[in-house]
Amino acid sequence: MSKVRQILDMNAFDATQGGTGAVARRLANLGAASVLFYREPIEMVSAKGAWMVARDGTRYLDFYNNVPSVGHSHPAVVEAVSRQIAVLNTNTRYIVEVVDAYLEALKDKLPAALSNVVMTCSGSEANDLALRVARAASGAQGIIVTETAYHGNTALVTEASPSALRRGTLPPHVVTVPAPSRAAFGEDIAGGFRAAVEAAMAELQGRGLGTAAFLADSIFSSDGIFADPAGFLRPAVEAVQAAGGLYIADEVQPGFGRTGDAFWGFARHGIAPDIVTMGKPMGNGFPMAGMAARPDHLAAFCEDVGYFNTFGGNPVAAAAGLAVLQVIAEEGLQENARTVGAHLRAGLEAVAADAPQVAAVRGAGLFTGVDLCSPDTPDIPDAAVTVRIIDAMRDAGVLIGAAGRYGATLKVRPPLCLNRDEADRFINAFANATRTTL
Amino acid sequence: MSKVRQILDMNAFDATQGGTGAVARRLANLGAASVLFYREPIEMVSAKGAWMVARDGTRYLDFYNNVPSVGHSHPAVVEAVSRQIAVLNTNTRYIVEVVDAYLEALKDKLPAALSNVVMTCSGSEANDLALRVARAASGAQGIIVTETAYHGNTALVTEASPSALRRGTLPPHVVTVPAPSRAAFGEDIAGGFRAAVEAAMAELQGRGLGTAAFLADSIFSSDGIFADPAGFLRPAVEAVQAAGGLYIADEVQPGFGRTGDAFWGFARHGIAPDIVTMGKPMGNGFPMAGMAARPDHLAAFCEDVGYFNTFGGNPVAAAAGLAVLQVIAEEGLQENARTVGAHLRAGLEAVAADAPQVAAVRGAGLFTGVDLCSPDTPDIPDAAVTVRIIDAMRDAGVLIGAAGRYGATLKVRPPLCLNRDEADRFINAFANATRTTL
Repeated sequence: MSKVRQILDMNAFDATQGGTGAVARRLANLGAASVLFYREPIEMVSAKGAWMVARDGTRYLDFYNNVPSVGHSHPAVVEAVSRQIAVLNTNTRYIVEVVDAYLEALKDKLPAALSNVVMTCSGSEANDLALRVARAASGAQGIIVTETAYHGNTALVTEASPSALRRGTLPPHVVTVPAPSRAAFGEDIAGGFRAAVEAAMAELQGRGLGTAAFLADSIFSSDGIFADPAGFLRPAVEAVQAAGGLYIADEVQPGFGRTGDAFWGFARHGIAPDIVTMGKPMGNGFPMAGMAARPDHLAAFCEDVGYFNTFGGNPVAAAAGLAVLQVIAEEGLQENARTVGAHLRAGLEAVAADAPQVAAVRGAGLFTGVDLCSPDTPDIPDAAVTVRIIDAMRDAGVLIGAAGRYGATLKVRPPLCLNRDEADRFINAFANATRTTL
Repeated sequence: MSKVRQILDMNAFDATQGGTGAVARRLANLGAASVLFYREPIEMVSAKGAWMVARDGTRYLDFYNNVPSVGHSHPAVVEAVSRQIAVLNTNTRYIVEVVDAYLEALKDKLPAALSNVVMTCSGSEANDLALRVARAASGAQGIIVTETAYHGNTALVTEASPSALRRGTLPPHVVTVPAPSRAAFGEDIAGGFRAAVEAAMAELQGRGLGTAAFLADSIFSSDGIFADPAGFLRPAVEAVQAAGGLYIADEVQPGFGRTGDAFWGFARHGIAPDIVTMGKPMGNGFPMAGMAARPDHLAAFCEDVGYFNTFGGNPVAAAAGLAVLQVIAEEGLQENARTVGAHLRAGLEAVAADAPQVAAVRGAGLFTGVDLCSPDTPDIPDAAVTVRIIDAMRDAGVLIGAAGRYGATLKVRPPLCLNRDEADRFINAFANATRTTL
């Protein structure tokens, strides 16, 4: 079992122990694929903005779920979906105006070279397609990912998601590099990371596979959130591109304004991806995702196989996606992510000064990682401490999860509509949790 | 290019020719992944029941799209989605009552042994997961599919979809068998098909891979629709199961009452699938799909990797799925598929008696295949005739597509709410088309 998997499982409900009531019912329905969070799972009944409400009436501040990015049950998205689904829901074999209107609105946010957008249902489907496009465009087979990456759940993408492995090893066409952390590379993250990616390329070359793609989440969500210094990704990406490989920016988590500094995570690094994949927040919960690519790259793939996605790019998804883009613009959510995110990190850094379990606070916009350690030994990540903090936060009415190689990094990612009062509430709850779980 | 791909392309808009207006706009957005239907694509603006309405006001009777199975824009589905999305849309890390209510309603329709249901976003994701579950459960690697099968668009599932290949060959772990047609096996379809599947198993054994799964759409939608004699699948399936392989019933197209005789296509054959996958009509257009499996099989897979699907099993999908099941029951749509389907086939057979281009009419419920041939040579499938018929039907206000090894089988699959008047309208349009396209 990979370390991160083991740790994530520590906070999950243990399905092998059985359950009662609603939990037993869920286990009977989903079996081994149950992934209920918390050792005592929560039954939810409603949600609005940054808040979720449980069956027992408890209100939880949601710092975990990054799908309802413009806020749970946002009225503009609800209205757009309700209006469109009553009129027309079909596929891209026909022309439907709202679909092209959405594709154009999305392309306005993307690098001009990536002018073809293929709509899918999930980020997994988008990454699965992106890897094949990269192989067709490059003529190579190898894939480079970070050591605790997660890119989705299809067969191909699971192979490129070390954090999903419970046992066994990666296939020969996948080579990992360390996450771009100070722990791995010291002060020269850009140089160290480039050298690691170059070594991975040499390894793939030695295996006779070459490098089709460097696939990376531009804020390294599963690896533990590594945002700074902005620009550190550039030398690694340019090395891959210089050798004929493609850089696939997996924006499923950092995209759509979350990092505050830019609409996409890759833009913080001043790099030009060859492919951009996106998902989770794209429809604020309506199942939709997509892949943007250069026309010649997409055409190279389509010479081999036809690609059609029945639900991908349906008019209801397009309406939801348009509403999300409009809300981000009209409510200034990218700027809100930047300012409230900075306020949140400043508060967490103040807590860290007095909390011996907090080793580091870092991030961009409303995506922050908080490294937890054994008290007094800040260089030893501590998953058990992390579990206790997560449970204490839950008791205080705050939803939060963990990531990272050691499962000891809190993933702090509230909706982009978070206000300062809600940020302060999180800071206070975290301060209390650090005091009570020592 | 595979024959079927070539033929489907014949009826599709030729993207290499460019376009004007709305078509040019779409090509600029989707590029080589454009799959617009008709050489002059249609812009749609609304749809209701069995009818779609184009921008120019033309009303089309929809005999092509099998997703809006209970009828386009069905008010019960619209209401269910609109209500749930305004209250709570989250993931299966939490318990939400409507999700388990849906899983249980679905399981009531499934064989009792398949008591774990994993929800996904698309039939492709469901089949991708099913193949991996079959490999984990069987310990083998090989996959058997029919020669013109289509099972989805992920990397793994595309390998098992010969009809998606434009060039290149299938990988060593995929072996095909002919479609269960009289053309391939004469009168003893059950015996011939079993022998073909046994030969494929021997081939996979010889390659050192063994047989993990026989993956088959139980009405063979892409191969040209082969429904009779009911029961013919049983010997082949039992041979696979006796050797330790799994039978995956791909019910993405025949499921949810379409065949009239039963809720699932496999039930017509009196067989017990090891895994059932489902999709398209499940949410009447809301993106959702699923895989039902035995708990021990699912557990075998989950020992190797964790599986979580962000959008799969969200409460809005569950609400849509529940509405679909309720509408099928309350409106008697399975029985309607049986009776109106029989009426439709009787009418088409009457047309066939006078139409030299019609070689055969066959099917079950509201899923009918019509083989088209060169006039006076009924044993030579004719794709060019098929294209002319499809275009003539479009001119008459009827949407219809083609399938089959030669692209010369009309795929007749209207919504299950079709009434007799609408069936008669199709019969008349088809009779006219056969007369005017000679």
